[in-house]
Amino acid sequence: MLKEAIDHRPKNNYAYPYDNETLHIKLRTKKNDLSQVTLVYGDPFDWTNEEPNLYEKNMHVAYQDELYDYWFAAIKTINRRTHYVFSLTENKNAKPVIFTERGYYNEVPKNYPPCFFKVPFLNPIDVFDAPTWVKDTIWYQIFPERFGNGDSSNDPEGTLDWGSSVPSPTNFFGGDFQGVIDHLDYLEELGINGLYFTPIFKAKSYHKYDTIDYFEIDPQFGDKDKFRELIGKCHEKGIRVMLDAVFNHSGYYFEPFQDVLENGAQSKYADWFHIQEFPLQFEPRPNYDTFAFVPEMPKLNTENPEVKKYLLDVAKYWVEEFDIDGWRLDVANEIDHQFWREFRQEVKSVKEDVYILGEIWHDSMPWLQGDQFDAVMNYPFTEATLNFFARQSINSEQFANQINNVLAAYPENVNEVAFNLLGSHDTPRVLTRTDGDKNLAKLMYLFQLTFIGTPCIYYGDEIAMTGGEDPGCRKCMVWDEDEQDQDMLEFFKEMIALRHKEPLLRGEGQFRFVETNNDENYVMYERCNSDERILVVINNSAHTLNVSLPQDYDGSTNLLTNQVVNSNISIDAFDFALVKC
Amino acid sequence: MLKEAIDHRPKNNYAYPYDNETLHIKLRTKKNDLSQVTLVYGDPFDWTNEEPNLYEKNMHVAYQDELYDYWFAAIKTINRRTHYVFSLTENKNAKPVIFTERGYYNEVPKNYPPCFFKVPFLNPIDVFDAPTWVKDTIWYQIFPERFGNGDSSNDPEGTLDWGSSVPSPTNFFGGDFQGVIDHLDYLEELGINGLYFTPIFKAKSYHKYDTIDYFEIDPQFGDKDKFRELIGKCHEKGIRVMLDAVFNHSGYYFEPFQDVLENGAQSKYADWFHIQEFPLQFEPRPNYDTFAFVPEMPKLNTENPEVKKYLLDVAKYWVEEFDIDGWRLDVANEIDHQFWREFRQEVKSVKEDVYILGEIWHDSMPWLQGDQFDAVMNYPFTEATLNFFARQSINSEQFANQINNVLAAYPENVNEVAFNLLGSHDTPRVLTRTDGDKNLAKLMYLFQLTFIGTPCIYYGDEIAMTGGEDPGCRKCMVWDEDEQDQDMLEFFKEMIALRHKEPLLRGEGQFRFVETNNDENYVMYERCNSDERILVVINNSAHTLNVSLPQDYDGSTNLLTNQVVNSNISIDAFDFALVKC
Repeated sequence: MLKEAIDHRPKNNYAYPYDNETLHIKLRTKKNDLSQVTLVYGDPFDWTNEEPNLYEKNMHVAYQDELYDYWFAAIKTINRRTHYVFSLTENKNAKPVIFTERGYYNEVPKNYPPCFFKVPFLNPIDVFDAPTWVKDTIWYQIFPERFGNGDSSNDPEGTLDWGSSVPSPTNFFGGDFQGVIDHLDYLEELGINGLYFTPIFKAKSYHKYDTIDYFEIDPQFGDKDKFRELIGKCHEKGIRVMLDAVFNHSGYYFEPFQDVLENGAQSKYADWFHIQEFPLQFEPRPNYDTFAFVPEMPKLNTENPEVKKYLLDVAKYWVEEFDIDGWRLDVANEIDHQFWREFRQEVKSVKEDVYILGEIWHDSMPWLQGDQFDAVMNYPFTEATLNFFARQSINSEQFANQINNVLAAYPENVNEVAFNLLGSHDTPRVLTRTDGDKNLAKLMYLFQLTFIGTPCIYYGDEIAMTGGEDPGCRKCMVWDEDEQDQDMLEFFKEMIALRHKEPLLRGEGQFRFVETNNDENYVMYERCNSDERILVVINNSAHTLNVSLPQDYDGSTNLLTNQVVNSNISIDAFDFALVKC
Repeated sequence: MLKEAIDHRPKNNYAYPYDNETLHIKLRTKKNDLSQVTLVYGDPFDWTNEEPNLYEKNMHVAYQDELYDYWFAAIKTINRRTHYVFSLTENKNAKPVIFTERGYYNEVPKNYPPCFFKVPFLNPIDVFDAPTWVKDTIWYQIFPERFGNGDSSNDPEGTLDWGSSVPSPTNFFGGDFQGVIDHLDYLEELGINGLYFTPIFKAKSYHKYDTIDYFEIDPQFGDKDKFRELIGKCHEKGIRVMLDAVFNHSGYYFEPFQDVLENGAQSKYADWFHIQEFPLQFEPRPNYDTFAFVPEMPKLNTENPEVKKYLLDVAKYWVEEFDIDGWRLDVANEIDHQFWREFRQEVKSVKEDVYILGEIWHDSMPWLQGDQFDAVMNYPFTEATLNFFARQSINSEQFANQINNVLAAYPENVNEVAFNLLGSHDTPRVLTRTDGDKNLAKLMYLFQLTFIGTPCIYYGDEIAMTGGEDPGCRKCMVWDEDEQDQDMLEFFKEMIALRHKEPLLRGEGQFRFVETNNDENYVMYERCNSDERILVVINNSAHTLNVSLPQDYDGSTNLLTNQVVNSNISIDAFDFALVKC
């Protein structure tokens, strides 16, 4: 038994309340090292005749990554108080070893309860509770300047004809809210039920990440009435709306920053930013904190109570006045945790089921403890998926390792609402990543749309648009049906409809890899609950494969053809199958 | 290289801001596995000619426990933003391996910055910032019913003569505030500068953990004027005062609970508690949540805004009106985190440098992130110390392992204010644990008083009082000097004075084991900063030992004798030496 590999620490991904009655416990061990792990648990105060009352629950390996097994058990708490140890068995002939918070024992140290791991009390207020609707949501990301120009009267000066040019860091094409309204039927037919808009507030640039006024709609998109109309029409169609909150930094033309530029240290807004020295300098690098080193994006001092109040008022205003359903938080990782805790409380006090999504590209456990965000943008998921399909740089086992590694890093209730994207306004498009290979792109979307969590489609991906790094990925949406890839669009519609039809494929069905095959380069995974199971087989190879299904799927139904499936299934090169039993 | 042993995850004990400019980074590896670890770090946005600007810092092994090395480096952040990877070298001939958040690489993956670990921005408001005075504090825990009876007029009915009987779970001896005031000179002479009182609010029991009124002093201790006098006199002597907040549960006679008993579900306080079912039942177990299963201690519903406001008002009242310096939080682990976050904000808004100490016996990282507590009661420290000295159940290497394990589990700024106790009103006394062996007890106190953190002496330990589990450990303080162990008292005075004299011995000087010797059963550890170092050698054996000091201590000063020390030092059985260079 490799003790060095064993890891457990309560109150993160390893031990957490899944709901108001259920605890999830995970234990990390070396891969394929142990034959059995048993959770030994109880209420620390529950004793009979000087003997603690302890219960046992067998754990199973929920995930495997390159180095580790992650054992899992869900238990109902007893009187909401839980302490526990792990009984580890290497093989049939070995005596179990007991793993505790204070090391290893040969027997459960019943007379030394302080060595037990503890989730001392299940307080509902601390339970991670993202809005339940998110599990059923398929997001669609709109970059408003580039989605549709429905009203030329609000076009900024120098607006180019729609799609007449490749995007540059400065040009405008006049996209607006009317353009979105005009295409809501298209979005409804596509089947999405959540829109995520990159910033819409008054700003100088075309991308609007340099806010001038957080309380105003950028006039190029329309006015507040138009926005209200948009939201209303979305809600009528059952489409939720998420906005982008750029609270890490303002724009250069944000009034308080202009005041600082004008009045220096005497400005009443001097402490709204992080000024290292007056007068302000911009070259070679700004002498005030900014996003990256962009002088036009001065970092806001979110520790200043005035700034905090201003931004929280902004956050509440758009929820209260316009009934938006979510906030995506730009550069969320560089703002203090204290701010985000108050943000959550304030926003949720106005509308309880607002979705709070942080832009964080890295490991995000500190933001996902229930007190800050409901989700982060799941770029590690993106990366693993790109590696396997687009780059073909890892084999199927490595793919499962990388995906499992991401899943194991978070609680299950976090995984169920993770924001799984394959590309965004900050990355090349999927089809550009696959060098134009549409089959590979489809496999990626298929994986995304059958994975646990909540998928987000970047506008235009569904009609096979291409584009490299920003600004390439920000082309105008193509509305000429002859130029849209109708086959890709049909594929999206079919897969989205399937996800809506099959609850198991949505956020809540458990996810597990059933088989990986490096020689034939396919993966097989399952979404399941206690009643039903759906198996997905993806052939990531250039050959038709004949894949044996697990025995229990004999006689199950192919969800795409509705035909009965026997023990084998033939899958074309770079194709897939979904079967349900 | 044993990859399975390697562990790092930012924003806990492995990576945290030590102060507003400094980051601490730790990496766990298998014990004695690697010859070199280098931190490779930079500002994620700092690039020159498409190459990231990266810096290197050699790490060193700060702690070793049974299984692991813990490598450490402190760095100044660059623009407050930090991303990093680790370069791991197994031995001189091996090529380094790069450990990242997304696995292992042969070279630093400069073109894949998302795989770097990140502490995205050092926001001062998130920095763990316990009050600085705590590092210099030596606490003394008083159980007020048993410390001194200075005013017989407030004795409860049936009060027994002071010390006339062994304590039972129900008897009273009349201890009160006047009794403490009467002995403040004694405490001043002892050298302590912090008093921690177990509960003083109106309650039924002698121990007062069953509060009747959180806004009233228990009349057996005196009144508010008397308490104000006590605080004033303490502050005059530079002694800070910490009270015990029993917010997990109230007492049976707490008015709101009485109202629930009387009015059942109709009581306006029905939601102040966790009632499973009306009418209330007490047998065989209460049908409402309690502390353990004690019907007299109904658990408070701290998620109820009214209850929260009530308790936070209590917390502020005693700070605002009586200028207390700390709150010790009873059964802190069973109350929701949200409550404690607000508690911290509210209490610190009244008095910034109040010390917040949680009663948690187990791993406490989730409460010590800067948003909740300043410290917890460090029972794992207690346990390791008992094992080595009192129980003689582990050897010196195991002792170092256990102590290092506790240190490695927390940030350094947490370790500097940890509340290190060897016994309390909830445990047998030290001298009872050592079976009356005063030399062993002294070694334990010596270790406690020279360890990083803030020590707490349980009343009467300094005069060699004995006592087993509660109620045995709650005997009346012995004031007859003939019955006090004057030798033990002198020992305490000397060691306390030394700790006050030598800043290195207090909270802030770094701590590290220099040598452990299992054959001769001694340990050698160092407290140091960049200028000075103090070495402590503890002979935990029944033999006089001749111990070779590290070379740099040749010519240093024995702090107890003021004599110059050469390369060797002779230490009697169960004795110790302190030398400074």
